[in-house]
Amino acid sequence: MAEQGESNGKTVVMITTPLEQEFVERIAAVAPDRVELINRPDLMPPTTYLNDHTGPAGWSRTPERETEWRSLLRCAEVLWDFAAAKDAGPFELSPSLKWVQTSSAGVGQYVHRLGVADSDLIVTTSSGVHAEALTEFVFAVLLYHEKRFGELHSMQRERTWRRFCGGELTGKTIAIIGPGRIGREIARIAKAFGLRVHVMPRTFDPARAAELGADEVFSRDQLQELLASADFVVLSTPHTPDTVGLIGAAEIAAMKPGVVLVNIARGVVIDEDALIEALQNSKIAFAGLDVFRTEPLPQDSPLWSLPNVLINPHSASTAPSENARITDIFCRNLRHYLDGRYEEMSPLLDKQRMY
Amino acid sequence: MAEQGESNGKTVVMITTPLEQEFVERIAAVAPDRVELINRPDLMPPTTYLNDHTGPAGWSRTPERETEWRSLLRCAEVLWDFAAAKDAGPFELSPSLKWVQTSSAGVGQYVHRLGVADSDLIVTTSSGVHAEALTEFVFAVLLYHEKRFGELHSMQRERTWRRFCGGELTGKTIAIIGPGRIGREIARIAKAFGLRVHVMPRTFDPARAAELGADEVFSRDQLQELLASADFVVLSTPHTPDTVGLIGAAEIAAMKPGVVLVNIARGVVIDEDALIEALQNSKIAFAGLDVFRTEPLPQDSPLWSLPNVLINPHSASTAPSENARITDIFCRNLRHYLDGRYEEMSPLLDKQRMY
Repeated sequence: MAEQGESNGKTVVMITTPLEQEFVERIAAVAPDRVELINRPDLMPPTTYLNDHTGPAGWSRTPERETEWRSLLRCAEVLWDFAAAKDAGPFELSPSLKWVQTSSAGVGQYVHRLGVADSDLIVTTSSGVHAEALTEFVFAVLLYHEKRFGELHSMQRERTWRRFCGGELTGKTIAIIGPGRIGREIARIAKAFGLRVHVMPRTFDPARAAELGADEVFSRDQLQELLASADFVVLSTPHTPDTVGLIGAAEIAAMKPGVVLVNIARGVVIDEDALIEALQNSKIAFAGLDVFRTEPLPQDSPLWSLPNVLINPHSASTAPSENARITDIFCRNLRHYLDGRYEEMSPLLDKQRMY
Repeated sequence: MAEQGESNGKTVVMITTPLEQEFVERIAAVAPDRVELINRPDLMPPTTYLNDHTGPAGWSRTPERETEWRSLLRCAEVLWDFAAAKDAGPFELSPSLKWVQTSSAGVGQYVHRLGVADSDLIVTTSSGVHAEALTEFVFAVLLYHEKRFGELHSMQRERTWRRFCGGELTGKTIAIIGPGRIGREIARIAKAFGLRVHVMPRTFDPARAAELGADEVFSRDQLQELLASADFVVLSTPHTPDTVGLIGAAEIAAMKPGVVLVNIARGVVIDEDALIEALQNSKIAFAGLDVFRTEPLPQDSPLWSLPNVLINPHSASTAPSENARITDIFCRNLRHYLDGRYEEMSPLLDKQRMY
């Protein structure tokens, strides 16, 4: 068993969440003479879907396996995904820990909860990897609603042929709250579909419109004006203290009647009770929700049974290409790390800004 | 009542399908001193949806109203949409007929059935008007399938939270059979989504790839090779003798297992029995169908109850902006027509080529 200091001067890199063998081999091939790679799928949770990084709820190792797992973690300097336990944070489990590459993008809050926000730990994320998958989900929701697929299914069940005039994207306006890597990808596809793009970045600068792919940039103070301008509202902010409760009852009231809302940010960005009320009274015509105040969504949530809601179990970002792309990022960063070029590692989490 | 020759030298233009008053007024304003515009919504079928140009099945005028309708048609030189009856073709109803502007794009076969293909009649169509609406429908189908919205609905009904890995568009290949105005718009959005675009135009010329927005151009002889290359197949050909039965059992056999098919062309372009079989045995994973061999789709068609089919009652091209855009085309053509600039009228139907 490898212990710290017993690795012949090699950097100990440990994979802590399930990763396909082909990607493990690509990582192992980066610098076999300088890296000792630990990958023990037998000590990890079973995967229930492709690119599952968390395993089934409630899964745990046997005490013997947990002991073995922790002894491996003790010598790790680099981790693919955080390893933490109820009774021990990352540094307690891995005292020499210097760098964690996460398979998730939105880890700012998690890093704070782990108590490592003020440390020197390097955290690189998979920010950007999920941009296409999330953008595809956003347009899947908008097109599902505009093309009235719900109504088409009802007609089909009843074998009813009734011609109709559906809606269209072209010519409408989309508001993107949080034009980061994901928001900019949404803006790009929105422009292709002939939508007008209004955005609210964290830092207001009207000169950034072109860079953000937007027709118009709104400041935080103009949030209600932005919401009033849009047929479609997409929440794609990071989860920070500034964005918790960003969309409350007043903001929903400012929206156009019949607006379509897509939340791919975090559940707490919107007041879920106000959202439910707006869906019940059809102020919001339709919502595609990938995230919720509490996840898994509680059995008694009214959201489950609302006909104008599409619930995605926080899986909109999961796509077949995900692990391949995170492996690309990790391999690139590993080369920089081994050569001491820490400033070139990316995407780097700003642990204070939280994204 | 206006009769031919009683119109003070004005060109008699008659609207024959329901059109909103605002658009009628725009047409009337083009050349009020040179045009006599006839619009009698009271003699037209009731509309059952926005931009309904056909009215309910089986609707007919009372004999008195039919007589009045025909007396109006008799003096028309220009029509917004064909007027024909079981017992009388366009020239019998309107002996001075010179030009028809259609609210549909695919009228080649209809013009042949009306027996006016060999006449000097100018037929301008609304080709291109429906490109965005149809393209949005195509991507609505592809995204619905890849993002597993059917499965999400089932999970939601059961209040089941089960994370999963959906599919994605990016990196896949789309085959577009018939890259006309609609096909090129599909190609444009496909490229934005990171799809590889393979096309088969009527006339093969590999040098046309860029113009068609394609990565690769296939000839008619390479149809099976094209089909074998694609994750998604979109039929967007015109309905001509060449395209009837274009996709038969052999062509379906050449497709990738698990392919997604979208037909926005005409039902007869694909062998519907072979299609049904391929859907039943999941060779074709999913089909979004806007057109059928027989329309309305017969009550006993197996297509109605196949879980991997989405049926659209030939309404994918209908969009709120439709009549406004056809009015733009008609007004522009009307100016050219009145000034004798017939060669500038567009989009012109090639009555022999049939599109």
